[in-house]
Amino acid sequence: MHKLVVAIGASSYPIYIGSGSASFESILPHIVYSEVMIVSNPTVAQHYLAKLEKALLGKRCESVIIPDGEAFKTLDSMNIIIDALLKAKFSRQCTLIALGGGVVGDITGFAASCYQRGVDYIQVPTTLLAQVDSSVGGKTAVNHPLGKNMIGAFYQPKAVIIDVDTLATLPKREFAAGLAEVIKYGLIYDANFFAWLEQHADAIKSRDTAILSQMIERCCQIKADIVAQDERESHIRMILNFGHTFAHAIETTLGHGEILHGEAVAIGMVLATKLSEQLGLVHYHLVERLESWLNAMQLPIYIPQQCKIEPMLDAMERDKKKAGDSLRFIVLEDLGRALIKGDVPLSFVSDLIKTSY
Amino acid sequence: MHKLVVAIGASSYPIYIGSGSASFESILPHIVYSEVMIVSNPTVAQHYLAKLEKALLGKRCESVIIPDGEAFKTLDSMNIIIDALLKAKFSRQCTLIALGGGVVGDITGFAASCYQRGVDYIQVPTTLLAQVDSSVGGKTAVNHPLGKNMIGAFYQPKAVIIDVDTLATLPKREFAAGLAEVIKYGLIYDANFFAWLEQHADAIKSRDTAILSQMIERCCQIKADIVAQDERESHIRMILNFGHTFAHAIETTLGHGEILHGEAVAIGMVLATKLSEQLGLVHYHLVERLESWLNAMQLPIYIPQQCKIEPMLDAMERDKKKAGDSLRFIVLEDLGRALIKGDVPLSFVSDLIKTSY
Repeated sequence: MHKLVVAIGASSYPIYIGSGSASFESILPHIVYSEVMIVSNPTVAQHYLAKLEKALLGKRCESVIIPDGEAFKTLDSMNIIIDALLKAKFSRQCTLIALGGGVVGDITGFAASCYQRGVDYIQVPTTLLAQVDSSVGGKTAVNHPLGKNMIGAFYQPKAVIIDVDTLATLPKREFAAGLAEVIKYGLIYDANFFAWLEQHADAIKSRDTAILSQMIERCCQIKADIVAQDERESHIRMILNFGHTFAHAIETTLGHGEILHGEAVAIGMVLATKLSEQLGLVHYHLVERLESWLNAMQLPIYIPQQCKIEPMLDAMERDKKKAGDSLRFIVLEDLGRALIKGDVPLSFVSDLIKTSY
Repeated sequence: MHKLVVAIGASSYPIYIGSGSASFESILPHIVYSEVMIVSNPTVAQHYLAKLEKALLGKRCESVIIPDGEAFKTLDSMNIIIDALLKAKFSRQCTLIALGGGVVGDITGFAASCYQRGVDYIQVPTTLLAQVDSSVGGKTAVNHPLGKNMIGAFYQPKAVIIDVDTLATLPKREFAAGLAEVIKYGLIYDANFFAWLEQHADAIKSRDTAILSQMIERCCQIKADIVAQDERESHIRMILNFGHTFAHAIETTLGHGEILHGEAVAIGMVLATKLSEQLGLVHYHLVERLESWLNAMQLPIYIPQQCKIEPMLDAMERDKKKAGDSLRFIVLEDLGRALIKGDVPLSFVSDLIKTSY
């Protein structure tokens, strides 16, 4: 197992990345108490619940299954976990384990943050998106009909355990969706990593375990670096939202669950890179390189026709990035370097959307 | 206005205690942003919403009314606030103001802790219980059918504004309920204050403003001292739960809303003082002094007949104070000095309950 550390003072925690039959064994030292509640969804539980339970011998281990999919990332699903904890009479001295993708991780983290005003939790992400992004950094939340991630908390896990083997059972479309967040790290933080991803496109597509491990480790390292600098997202951490204002608007307009988050991020990053080009910051060639890689990974690069412009603009206004009549965006000033741009006029954004269907 | 400070590092905040027409004016310097959402209940809003809005001139001020009473301290009520914030398109740069009693304060604080992963809030408590207890210290929560305060967060307000005049409209029964938490501070932390409360029983009952101001200030000072030593309730802050394990069991057994929290605390403190006497820590005379003062304030001192022993014991086991086959209680080792006792046998507690109807 490779080990990284997210260094945020008293809340610091390790990320383990590995594969093989013993990959879950690093979890045990991070569980202080006897009571353990595993939260998962039906698909993931079928594949990996037994393996995880085996690594928890000696604990009082219970599990709760929540429905799968972004459409179920709701307060109601969070309450299913709280119900299970109370029915099991679990005390404050308990540990939640999120076994699954981003939805399971975000809901479980939020449930842990508010059960009896806060208990321990551990992330065991089983999708590429969760492994490279949502399981690291302590952003937990559920959605509201009027917006994504509107109810949540900053609440760090005690550890993140990444078993690369779990990607073997991940559907093709979900694997691709995770790759959108992967290329994002190259765009905003590491030009060499962007080039490495271009060079290893075939090995990545064929899910070569060694290449995937390297790739995931680099993503986690970048995310850990950024989170360590700015846990509460008051400055540099915002660059991780590159492409996300557009992506959230697309997801909200289509209805949560109609498009995968990573797919929306792929389209959003193309829009944000075009925006950077139109602001005179990067050359159009970068838009083409990005589109070409996303195409190779079978990710979408155009806004879906049914996603109308007015509700998209409305959703962006309601998002966390509004300031008067202009919007705040993360843009690129070069490949591998992002910055926060606070005064992008709504009309400018509207024109860009019109030409991106 | 008198000013105290809750000193917890970067999260430190002031408590203002005063009366008169200008009492809400100290609020404005503590609101950093333009967007302000006042949360209140129908009764309190009728009396004080206009006065508070007048003190917020220049702000974009909205309000939302949630139903009154402990039975509505639920995730659903919290969601009413989130709905209002999203419909008003409020950003992360907003401030919530809790105008009301403990229920409004606890729900609003929790909503502030999780709206967009955390926004500012200010407590403007209008009941005695909220002024001397729940508005100070950052414990926020909602109830679950299986237990009180099971979903929440530790999340400190930016300020607490106490207008003693608001007690004039408080119903007699609610005023008395608040006095239970007042005498608690004397019992657990300040023998002189206990004696002062005995001496000023008549002035307190007749709601003499000057005496009430002194009384509230002393309570807030004690609570601020304790919270500053232990924000997250890992040691000394637990003594504030004196009588509360019994009280929560009574409330859960009767159903939330059937008895006021302060009334349950009055009964719970009598039980906890009896427990202290039976453990050989205090003289029975203290039980009599406590019962006499509670009687004078028209607070109950016996467990209601309809509150059966088995569900009470069950609720106590599910509460946050369980450890194996014994329970953890806060007991008195002397008037004004409390300690945490971790190994009280269930059978011992059961016998005590049987003789306290």
